[in-house]
Amino acid sequence: MHLIFEMKVKKGIYKMNNEQRKAIFIQAEQWVLEAGGIIRDRLKNPIKVDSKSNTNDLVTEVDKEIELYFAEKIKRNYPEDLLLGEEGYGDDVTSLDGIVWIIDPIDGTMNFVHLKKDFAISVGIFHDGIGEIGLIYDVMADELYSAKRGEGAYKNDVKLGSLSKGVKFQDSIISFNHDLLIKSSKVHSETLRDLVLQVRGTRIVGAAALDIAYVAEGLLEGYYSEGLSPWDIAAGLIILKEVFGKITRVNGEEINILERGTVLACNSALQSRLLIEKTE
Amino acid sequence: MHLIFEMKVKKGIYKMNNEQRKAIFIQAEQWVLEAGGIIRDRLKNPIKVDSKSNTNDLVTEVDKEIELYFAEKIKRNYPEDLLLGEEGYGDDVTSLDGIVWIIDPIDGTMNFVHLKKDFAISVGIFHDGIGEIGLIYDVMADELYSAKRGEGAYKNDVKLGSLSKGVKFQDSIISFNHDLLIKSSKVHSETLRDLVLQVRGTRIVGAAALDIAYVAEGLLEGYYSEGLSPWDIAAGLIILKEVFGKITRVNGEEINILERGTVLACNSALQSRLLIEKTE
Repeated sequence: MHLIFEMKVKKGIYKMNNEQRKAIFIQAEQWVLEAGGIIRDRLKNPIKVDSKSNTNDLVTEVDKEIELYFAEKIKRNYPEDLLLGEEGYGDDVTSLDGIVWIIDPIDGTMNFVHLKKDFAISVGIFHDGIGEIGLIYDVMADELYSAKRGEGAYKNDVKLGSLSKGVKFQDSIISFNHDLLIKSSKVHSETLRDLVLQVRGTRIVGAAALDIAYVAEGLLEGYYSEGLSPWDIAAGLIILKEVFGKITRVNGEEINILERGTVLACNSALQSRLLIEKTE
Repeated sequence: MHLIFEMKVKKGIYKMNNEQRKAIFIQAEQWVLEAGGIIRDRLKNPIKVDSKSNTNDLVTEVDKEIELYFAEKIKRNYPEDLLLGEEGYGDDVTSLDGIVWIIDPIDGTMNFVHLKKDFAISVGIFHDGIGEIGLIYDVMADELYSAKRGEGAYKNDVKLGSLSKGVKFQDSIISFNHDLLIKSSKVHSETLRDLVLQVRGTRIVGAAALDIAYVAEGLLEGYYSEGLSPWDIAAGLIILKEVFGKITRVNGEEINILERGTVLACNSALQSRLLIEKTE
């Protein structure tokens, strides 16, 4: 156990039991739903778009506004907690000691800008490195995927079943972006091309948090991506674990949530068929 | 119904006028919405799935039920009209003389079975080869794309604007299935791979009628597919025309609606950049 955590526990500052997890969950859920309402409201007017590192990495004033919304709420209500957010309004988080909120204010910004749907607010709450609460809110569909550690995962009020062990590779649907078939430093494109011809179907959702939520719901059997950041996967990781799905790097390595990297989220029964590490 | 009108049409005395088109539209719209309600109801129970020519070409009892629903309605109310439907409960249509309803009861059956969303009822109504009425109903989103020839296209009650001529290739979003990047007898996969790296983003919707509807709405700038049948494109073709979009084969050739083939549906301003015929 980490020293800081032990000190806080001794001081009675934090000790996330079921009741406390529930209290934080209720608060986080309320903020997520309220933030979703703000986003839906903003979509009534044209959205101002910037591009970040390249033209395919979009950010809008709404992304920033929503992250600021969470930053202010967290600072006011949970001043001890840290926030790691995509737009940089949070803290400089270098470890998962204590309680850390990992937030993507709009996961799937390209979908937000172009399709006006299929994007999500993603909130993962970790306590001393352990995922405690995950919330993925499909804003336009008004569907909330959520989980509290050890208490199962939900879509709105309906509990998600454990993922079927009987799923067949050839009947599965896998999602990943087209460019993984063309060029990737980490994913073996040739293997992925073979896979496309073997499975029943492939899709692109275009929002990592929703892709992982769909895997958790059993709508997709697998999801690949590379270059994902903590906020892309934090909530999904917590939710997927509750239905006994697997989320690792594409070579099967455990994910260090604070590092960028590849992701394979899948039905556990198919994991061995889906690992596609690039080997030089 | 309009017996005198039909007789005159058969005799070539006059074409479908605005009033007649409106009357058929209102009837077709009512059936489409009612059929959507039946499908939503069926999704409350497990769906029985067959596969047709191969395991990726699914058909369900619901596909069949919905096509029969339309077949019976059309035969009872418009006995002179012909029906060309995916599941084969219609007529043996070899020409577009007279009034022909071209129907896909569930466009995007794989989405229907796996994702339980992102599928559509597609109804295109042609009169002597001219597309008069198009209806694409996104059943789970309860969104109806529709058009009457010469009267513009709508999403629910909102008129869709003409597609922007100012759209840039590098800012565009294009949709097509992964396998077009891997193997295709008609589409030049290498060119498509280059395109993926040049445009802003790519997606897979997985339901041809919805893909084309999204192009018509300006959410996507282009959509490629191969091996599409009349019912996949009939309604989309009519709707897209009303917003001055283009739909052709991938080499730019005009589509004969009764023949299977490739499709490029796009913003007209980008068509020359998007043609990717395979040349031996």
